[in-house]
Amino acid sequence: MPEGIVFSDRFHGISGSAIREIFKMIAKPDMISFAGGNPAPSALPDTAVAEIAARVLKENGKQILQYGATEGYPPFIESLTSYIAPDMGQRPYSVLPVTGSTQAMDLLCKALINPGDVILVEDPSFLGNLQCMRLYQAKLVPIESDSEGILTDMLEKAIQQYHPKMLYVIPNFQNPTGKTLGLQRRMEIAQLAAKYHVLVAEDDPYRDLRYKGTSLPTIKSFDVSGWVAFLGSFSKIISPGLRVGYIAADADIIRKCVMGKQSSDLHTANLNQAIVDRFLRDNLLPEHIRSIRSGYAAQLNTMLNMLKAFPEGTVWTEPEGGLFIWVELPESLNTLDMLSKAVERHVAYVPGTHFYANGGHLNTFRLNFSNSNITQIEQGMTALSRLIQENL
Amino acid sequence: MPEGIVFSDRFHGISGSAIREIFKMIAKPDMISFAGGNPAPSALPDTAVAEIAARVLKENGKQILQYGATEGYPPFIESLTSYIAPDMGQRPYSVLPVTGSTQAMDLLCKALINPGDVILVEDPSFLGNLQCMRLYQAKLVPIESDSEGILTDMLEKAIQQYHPKMLYVIPNFQNPTGKTLGLQRRMEIAQLAAKYHVLVAEDDPYRDLRYKGTSLPTIKSFDVSGWVAFLGSFSKIISPGLRVGYIAADADIIRKCVMGKQSSDLHTANLNQAIVDRFLRDNLLPEHIRSIRSGYAAQLNTMLNMLKAFPEGTVWTEPEGGLFIWVELPESLNTLDMLSKAVERHVAYVPGTHFYANGGHLNTFRLNFSNSNITQIEQGMTALSRLIQENL
Repeated sequence: MPEGIVFSDRFHGISGSAIREIFKMIAKPDMISFAGGNPAPSALPDTAVAEIAARVLKENGKQILQYGATEGYPPFIESLTSYIAPDMGQRPYSVLPVTGSTQAMDLLCKALINPGDVILVEDPSFLGNLQCMRLYQAKLVPIESDSEGILTDMLEKAIQQYHPKMLYVIPNFQNPTGKTLGLQRRMEIAQLAAKYHVLVAEDDPYRDLRYKGTSLPTIKSFDVSGWVAFLGSFSKIISPGLRVGYIAADADIIRKCVMGKQSSDLHTANLNQAIVDRFLRDNLLPEHIRSIRSGYAAQLNTMLNMLKAFPEGTVWTEPEGGLFIWVELPESLNTLDMLSKAVERHVAYVPGTHFYANGGHLNTFRLNFSNSNITQIEQGMTALSRLIQENL
Repeated sequence: MPEGIVFSDRFHGISGSAIREIFKMIAKPDMISFAGGNPAPSALPDTAVAEIAARVLKENGKQILQYGATEGYPPFIESLTSYIAPDMGQRPYSVLPVTGSTQAMDLLCKALINPGDVILVEDPSFLGNLQCMRLYQAKLVPIESDSEGILTDMLEKAIQQYHPKMLYVIPNFQNPTGKTLGLQRRMEIAQLAAKYHVLVAEDDPYRDLRYKGTSLPTIKSFDVSGWVAFLGSFSKIISPGLRVGYIAADADIIRKCVMGKQSSDLHTANLNQAIVDRFLRDNLLPEHIRSIRSGYAAQLNTMLNMLKAFPEGTVWTEPEGGLFIWVELPESLNTLDMLSKAVERHVAYVPGTHFYANGGHLNTFRLNFSNSNITQIEQGMTALSRLIQENL
């Protein structure tokens, strides 16, 4: 380290290490990891992407390898706009391709957040985006939830008390809880956003991974005054390694995000946009998503079945889709302490405390079922159950 | 626009529109554009990239399409480290692949800059990165240059006066002037950085595009105390559309950049890193760069020859490499006003004022020669020369 270097204030209190340490700890052979949010290897369409990459480069290589517009690769803007139109409601919107939906959150914070501004968040919520908000020195205020997600009466009280700039919400199969936000609440959130001038960042990467029940309309579809920004991703349905997501929002919000993106990474790589464009144009997604769903549904069911044999006092969510189950153990247990013992037995999870804006909740953890096969789920869950029993 | 929305303070005074307006204005058929910084279409290796993309996806598609580490795609970290080693000097360093070197600047600012912090910049300098610094609410202080780049005695005085956090410098074939920083000054800058604890951001995207003269050592190679961060790019020698660049710096600086990148875009797309990795491993760059150089050298020479016929009082740089020539007209001329007339005659440039931290210098402009063929350069320069003559 250069002697005397002083890093910026935005890193105060940011360790960035908890999850990184977990992933280092579990990078061992024979580890059964329920810790990440990785798609199953079988869900990654490597053969199709290899063929498509070669094809788009043959057809349009000079344009793809040249600088692109910050606003996006024109054919992709077109196919993406058609693809999302049915879920976006009646209000006109613009769309901006971004470098994974991680960047969508970053650009919205860049556009809106001054140090000290309040962002309302679900409690628990996706820790990657909580860290993003913290790096913008936002004050995170958690809102209580029940089984149908955010309690809108608590939300309205918090808005009146804190005058937030933004509400961050994952409506479908939430990360980390797997919960789905109820229909009535989606309407109410859109109304509250318009009434109080709070931008809703609706982060919906798991939407297409529904294994039962009926798809619900987006919050964005109830947006009549432009206070909802929709964050989408192809990470869970094509590939996270390609880093392609998008923001759909009012044109003026997109324009600010474009200006922010100009000096973030200039534009999202054209090749990656062109690959996703072909998936949309060639209508490859419906069949591909069907095949992913059937595998994940079986993995989810196996994990839920295994939970039934867990020690008494264990409570868990029963998601209708997504990648995660949320588990609460009896209060005497500490999942942070227990993790190293779990890793010794070749099974890993993420301690729940990391997902809470204010920490605590040491008896909770998150389980991922997409990246383990049925046998691994049975073995890993058996090991976890025993470990918990021994620590009671 | 949602009624009553208030964007963040960092956008105050940022229009982002000057250059965007130019590019909209010149997006017409038959336009000869000396305005951008685009590689020539012939310099973009579309056939090779098509073959490589298909191959790496066949060989390692599951890993490439899966989430990657923020720290980079492991094979690429390895090949990149070997590739840059000869230019990095003796001090140990870490390397971070980033999403174009635009992101390198963004991450360094994120790591170091609080609102109001001073960054010293060349005058003129690359406007994209000036905008990046402004979005971090840095105070930009320009340092005088002569034909060998930054005047180091002026630099030392400015350091003593302003206590800057950072110095931003483009040592080779600078954007926009085409100037190259002298050897002695490179050493002095490294020494001043260590003496006064100022981080040098050495931005070197044009290094390999030298058409005559001898390559000079990097500032980084004189760095003995960790105060130089080297920013590299494959945009000019493989493809800007792939968005692959890197930062080489002390491990602790890289660690902060990694934490910033986690919530910027999580990681640079694996496919794009894997493609550049194959260019390095298969040693495809030397021959490819040779072929680019010979084309660009001829284009540069043509443009320099055409300048000799420009009206008296026109002064220009004679770069030994890179993509740009810098032109100063007699003081009575205003290149900002003249641009629309130039565009009417189907030729475009970027007015020089946009590259100055404090504006002014209305009689200057930047010419790019890489993206026009010899005939276009002859035609466009003839039209420009006539236009200037008419406006004298």
